[in-house]
Amino acid sequence: MIKLNFSNLTKIPAQHGITDDDVKAKAHLIPEFLKKIHNRDQGFYSVIDDKEMLKKINDYAQSVEGKYNDIIVLGIGGSSLGTICLQQSLKHLFENELNRGPKLHVMDNIDPTWLKQLDDILDYEKTLFIVVTKSGGTPETLSQYFYFRNLSDKKGLDPKEHFIFVTDPEKGLLRKIAIEEGIPAFDVPQNVGGRFSVLTSVGLLPAKLIGINIEELIKGAQKIRDQFLSEELKNNSPFALATIQYLLGEKGKIINVVIPYSQRLIRFADWYRQLLAESIGKTLDNDGNKVYRGLTPINALGVTDQHSQSQLYNEGPNDKLFLFIEVADLGPELLIPNLKPNDETVSFLKNISFNKLMKTEKIGTEQALTKNDRPNLTIEVNSVSEESLGELFMLFEASIAFLGEFYNINAFDQPGVELSKNLTKELLSGENL
Amino acid sequence: MIKLNFSNLTKIPAQHGITDDDVKAKAHLIPEFLKKIHNRDQGFYSVIDDKEMLKKINDYAQSVEGKYNDIIVLGIGGSSLGTICLQQSLKHLFENELNRGPKLHVMDNIDPTWLKQLDDILDYEKTLFIVVTKSGGTPETLSQYFYFRNLSDKKGLDPKEHFIFVTDPEKGLLRKIAIEEGIPAFDVPQNVGGRFSVLTSVGLLPAKLIGINIEELIKGAQKIRDQFLSEELKNNSPFALATIQYLLGEKGKIINVVIPYSQRLIRFADWYRQLLAESIGKTLDNDGNKVYRGLTPINALGVTDQHSQSQLYNEGPNDKLFLFIEVADLGPELLIPNLKPNDETVSFLKNISFNKLMKTEKIGTEQALTKNDRPNLTIEVNSVSEESLGELFMLFEASIAFLGEFYNINAFDQPGVELSKNLTKELLSGENL
Repeated sequence: MIKLNFSNLTKIPAQHGITDDDVKAKAHLIPEFLKKIHNRDQGFYSVIDDKEMLKKINDYAQSVEGKYNDIIVLGIGGSSLGTICLQQSLKHLFENELNRGPKLHVMDNIDPTWLKQLDDILDYEKTLFIVVTKSGGTPETLSQYFYFRNLSDKKGLDPKEHFIFVTDPEKGLLRKIAIEEGIPAFDVPQNVGGRFSVLTSVGLLPAKLIGINIEELIKGAQKIRDQFLSEELKNNSPFALATIQYLLGEKGKIINVVIPYSQRLIRFADWYRQLLAESIGKTLDNDGNKVYRGLTPINALGVTDQHSQSQLYNEGPNDKLFLFIEVADLGPELLIPNLKPNDETVSFLKNISFNKLMKTEKIGTEQALTKNDRPNLTIEVNSVSEESLGELFMLFEASIAFLGEFYNINAFDQPGVELSKNLTKELLSGENL
Repeated sequence: MIKLNFSNLTKIPAQHGITDDDVKAKAHLIPEFLKKIHNRDQGFYSVIDDKEMLKKINDYAQSVEGKYNDIIVLGIGGSSLGTICLQQSLKHLFENELNRGPKLHVMDNIDPTWLKQLDDILDYEKTLFIVVTKSGGTPETLSQYFYFRNLSDKKGLDPKEHFIFVTDPEKGLLRKIAIEEGIPAFDVPQNVGGRFSVLTSVGLLPAKLIGINIEELIKGAQKIRDQFLSEELKNNSPFALATIQYLLGEKGKIINVVIPYSQRLIRFADWYRQLLAESIGKTLDNDGNKVYRGLTPINALGVTDQHSQSQLYNEGPNDKLFLFIEVADLGPELLIPNLKPNDETVSFLKNISFNKLMKTEKIGTEQALTKNDRPNLTIEVNSVSEESLGELFMLFEASIAFLGEFYNINAFDQPGVELSKNLTKELLSGENL
């Protein structure tokens, strides 16, 4: 099970670090925060008990087994980032070049070149489009849907066989189309926000269709959910994580860098970027005061970004908290055959594996940061598996809920995205020209 | 040709923006800064005139035409980020699934699962490994080389036919191996740092091998280089850009977000992350004072990250400068066939193309940021072409050189990465256990 190791924080001066006691001093807030979170009536931690949802996904997947060569997700933001992460984390890293099983492509942009080029690799008769928009009205996603639906119709294909929707159970244009035209549709529960929806049909349906074990994902999430609901600090890792992020944020560590040491987790950091940015980046607090809150997330990757970002992280402004994700089992040991053992450049690479080198570089990196008084902690997972992904998703979602309460803001809305949307509509309607 | 549009900066209050006059007031520094930069004896702006380098690359490419199905770059940081960007920007976005021409994979990590899985898609007899390390001693890259060389040798393949090196002209282990074993090797000029090396053999050789027009890349870079060397502000867009970044950094805009509105440019922002982070993130200034300088780069993507980061960008702390990259020609117009023109959700999507929607969303996004007093500027390029990539690379490299002089730091070294490297070596040698 996931473990939070923040011992490095206690090794650096108080102005940049925190102690066990600092965290413990906040533990009394857990019951109050849990009550406030319950009152917000959010479903991200209860939807994972929805057995009907899983059954519907499993039944559908069984009914279409072997039918599609390509699965295309049309969606953006919370409708795509979780799925991209699941694919990268749990499938072969060159899956789409292996020509086996269905290939998944997540189209989370409206770039015309990208959309047009997708055409070059699709056989529409063997393609399923999953259209994902919680509101049912995301203009980018609907535009993509219109485009591919039009192409599919022109080829004389039955839309009920080549499109499925994941959207609000009742409202929105996509639900309306589903009802009118009999297109299969899955629900996004109304009380689960887009960025918290990876463990609903939004993420689970495409995951299941490419062979990911969704029961294990849920199992991992449930374990951490039980921690989240515990009023005991020692059992509540989401609260501990949120406390650290909050306390260090107050000490000027306003940038949170997520650094998984695993190529498979490179997109996990992208998923978390949305969660932290949209949830905590808020102008108004719950009392209507202008507070301009926010922690700015950065995605990084070990060991790769040691050769890109470490210089800044170690020598630049001390304004960051580093969240390492360490994987105990990186896969079968892969030995480095040192072909030049006597050359001093590489003589230290004696009988070691890539696994060992990667882990040791992580230790070297955290030790350097700690010596430079840069706060850092490590989230340890056993392996990159369905269960550990479920744990990671829920750890970060639940910590965000606590973090919102620390800041006295609503972590579940996103009022700041309306302005640019409205300006875009005005521009297209000629009102703003 | 590239154009810098910073009119939005003049529309917001002085504490968050800047005026034309603010930039003009720094123009007198250009001659002094250019002199200082010349004295640093860096080759990033002269290497692009090296016709011998191009000839060597072209001759080699011609000699191996049609010989390889797979081209694997082994390299990390400055040895890989430029190549990844060139591939993403200038090749078909599903190139590696089209089964035509050579496929390029850039392996910029040592994750054992990733390295092992590469095996599943390679036919070693038709594979070329390009080993890229400027110093010739990067442990991660040498480990990868040993691993694949060992596999290749076991298959009885001639290493001279399946490996080429890009490294220091004289020094380092890789150069030594090249000389001893007769493996073809290309030079990284000693006065061109890794993160400035995309327009040397580091980036140009793999680019050429996958059919990118490297002469056009160079042509674009030369145009901006000529601007860079101009002492007139009106002709010197790299200086204008650096001035804005510096002045706004001094006003607390310590995060620089690069947002291309083009799926093809998604990796350009990754390339720039290293350039800005490693060049400007420095503890010591030129006089040895501890200054802890640095601008923290963030990669984003339009329109995708409107649905992930915009909330924070508009409502959170006003600590960011936004650098949009706008592409005038996004490719052939791709019309959105509005299948529900009478539904109010999408009624504004009337007779418009994805091209128009993408551009309009960019305008809506910058207008929203401007209304929220968030400083932003736009770099306009004609299209995503070799020439415009060359312009972009040189614009940002040259602006970094000026930025280093503004901060009175050395933009060309990276002393802060040594500590973690040494700690890793000690750990592997048992000295630190």
